[in-house]
Amino acid sequence: MKLRTAALASLVVVVTACAQTEKATPTTRAEVIPVMVTREDVQSVAPALDRYTQTQLLGELWNRPDLSPRDRSLVTVAALIARNHLIELPYYLTLALENGVKPSELSEVLTHLAFYSGRGNAMAAVPLVKAVFSQRKIGTDQLAPASPVLLPLNEATEAQRAARVGRQFGTVAPGLVQYTTDVLFRDLWLRPALAPRDRSLVTISALIAAGQTAQLTPHLNLAMDNGLTQGQAAEVITHLAFYAGWPNAFSALPVAKDVFEKRPR
Amino acid sequence: MKLRTAALASLVVVVTACAQTEKATPTTRAEVIPVMVTREDVQSVAPALDRYTQTQLLGELWNRPDLSPRDRSLVTVAALIARNHLIELPYYLTLALENGVKPSELSEVLTHLAFYSGRGNAMAAVPLVKAVFSQRKIGTDQLAPASPVLLPLNEATEAQRAARVGRQFGTVAPGLVQYTTDVLFRDLWLRPALAPRDRSLVTISALIAAGQTAQLTPHLNLAMDNGLTQGQAAEVITHLAFYAGWPNAFSALPVAKDVFEKRPR
Amino acid sequence: MKLRTAALASLVVVVTACAQTEKATPTTRAEVIPVMVTREDVQSVAPALDRYTQTQLLGELWNRPDLSPRDRSLVTVAALIARNHLIELPYYLTLALENGVKPSELSEVLTHLAFYSGRGNAMAAVPLVKAVFSQRKIGTDQLAPASPVLLPLNEATEAQRAARVGRQFGTVAPGLVQYTTDVLFRDLWLRPALAPRDRSLVTISALIAAGQTAQLTPHLNLAMDNGLTQGQAAEVITHLAFYAGWPNAFSALPVAKDVFEKRPR
Repeated sequence: MKLRTAALASLVVVVTACAQTEKATPTTRAEVIPVMVTREDVQSVAPALDRYTQTQLLGELWNRPDLSPRDRSLVTVAALIARNHLIELPYYLTLALENGVKPSELSEVLTHLAFYSGRGNAMAAVPLVKAVFSQRKIGTDQLAPASPVLLPLNEATEAQRAARVGRQFGTVAPGLVQYTTDVLFRDLWLRPALAPRDRSLVTISALIAAGQTAQLTPHLNLAMDNGLTQGQAAEVITHLAFYAGWPNAFSALPVAKDVFEKRPR
Repeated sequence: MKLRTAALASLVVVVTACAQTEKATPTTRAEVIPVMVTREDVQSVAPALDRYTQTQLLGELWNRPDLSPRDRSLVTVAALIARNHLIELPYYLTLALENGVKPSELSEVLTHLAFYSGRGNAMAAVPLVKAVFSQRKIGTDQLAPASPVLLPLNEATEAQRAARVGRQFGTVAPGLVQYTTDVLFRDLWLRPALAPRDRSLVTISALIAAGQTAQLTPHLNLAMDNGLTQGQAAEVITHLAFYAGWPNAFSALPVAKDVFEKRPR
Repeated sequence: MKLRTAALASLVVVVTACAQTEKATPTTRAEVIPVMVTREDVQSVAPALDRYTQTQLLGELWNRPDLSPRDRSLVTVAALIARNHLIELPYYLTLALENGVKPSELSEVLTHLAFYSGRGNAMAAVPLVKAVFSQRKIGTDQLAPASPVLLPLNEATEAQRAARVGRQFGTVAPGLVQYTTDVLFRDLWLRPALAPRDRSLVTISALIAAGQTAQLTPHLNLAMDNGLTQGQAAEVITHLAFYAGWPNAFSALPVAKDVFEKRPR
């Protein structure tokens, strides 16, 4: 992994004006300015954590062959946003761009996770993404438009999915079932600026990172239908052990095992 | 939904004095002043997310007929606090007041969620609730006292609940079982400033938003015993898909289906 | 519990210089300075929450006999870090030191939770731990080195564990299985600055607090193998009801019941 510095750069939202509550106007704005959680900070409170970071995490994990640095960047950014872990997010957003993730792809990841990890997680990340984009002079001309020409829909597959969900939950929450069709599978998933395979990679990363294994089976199957290999899927789980914790990774393992075993060879 | 502005107002905790660590005194105080995550911020990094916000979320979801704007405000505030999603909380606290939620009810929501989503979530929300109350000149005279006259207890129902929990876990964690009776069901739930039906609405919203479906069955039944209709419950889940993410909503669906099917008609 | 003040001291990360985004240099640093969420703040928005804090939480819970204040401090700090609940963390870090938890133990807790609750939670806590250590003049000479002499390994037990995990998941994610052996059980768990029993206490606290009951059975058994009594384990769950919410505590109860019943007497 290319690392421009050993320090982990981060950002903090801070308000420029120290106005009193009473005097603050609706136009008072927060500025996002770069700060650091330096390697020295970590060393000063947890020398072992620094050692694990330098050796196993940065030295080994990111260089393992089964998942590219670009994919690892998507996995990491998705996990951080899905867990509302903002302190290292700017660093990993920047690293993602350096690893070949396009600004338009990061933008789609943010929108995608508003639906798959909750709006609040996406909104909390907006100022940090904005700061990174601003720092690198990335304008909206590099992002996908709000309403692009969509990818062609596989009508047969989507009809099967809609029928299955409709049978399960059509009478329980018809509104949610309809939104799932209209907003997610006939709109969000067809936005062309993030390939379906990458959209799946982000989705399963967010699910595993948030411990939402109940929804993992269909999405891991969809990810593999979309081109994710078994070796890559296993490496996603391995990678997320470090970023989302061993328990979340281990909770994903029996689901992955079951999916791997049941898929046609 | 009445929206005074398209912008999503938020607040940031900031320290007024830029003191050095060494000089900071225990009396240094944080001020909470209003800042904005504006529509423009979202547009600058994720034009599609802005479109979904304007159309499906604000344009449609909040206007769906099966759940009132007031109820949607309780659901949203509960979800944001339960997920520690602070950036939009001041906006939705303000919207809740405009939608008819009383200050005393918001105060009870905060206290209720200290128990049902963890003390840390409630404490993190305290400065933001305080700022909104302060901005609207809401004093403690508008809040319920710490020890009010409690609602009458349905002794038979409570005896059944206590017996059931006692049989299950009385020998495992007798202290917790006793606190559940004394602090929650013979105290918190009987506080009159939030109707039992609304307390249930907040509880199931927090459970669904945090993915805690294991505890959803008894609380969804209690919610419906307390007057929540099936249509409203379904719409709560639909609403939460947008705020807490699709996976949490879909994990709630089989539980809701099972509860709906087993209830006497 | 010794409480130097009724107020809950906290810290906020804030940037000293109010620089514009454009001018900010990579050396701009965040300072952590003490602020307060005072008892008055809580009273101003939720008088009942203050009453519960003073009576049941601080007045009763911390004084219950089955778990020492020192152990309760480890449980609380683990829960706060595992849930990314930073606002009260400095208070409870300070209280932990006053209750007899050594700086070297807190340092190990932080490193341990990087693996058991996700790196992001640990990294977010780094500036707060650093501030508390700095305030109390705790230098790295009081912390365990990055690579100490490790505790002796129980080779037979570890071989059993490794074989069991290998059978389950060795073909699913061999990399993760190998890291579990090399980084966790032949390294992290053998670091001498935190006793295995305390390491287990922190692990099960983090699991319960984060609702990760799927991984609780083996770790609760390990905790009891490491010396945690059944009465202490029950009290951990009771304590966490207040800090991580009733639903997480109740989700842990059936797991604990099952573990308690199946252990040899």
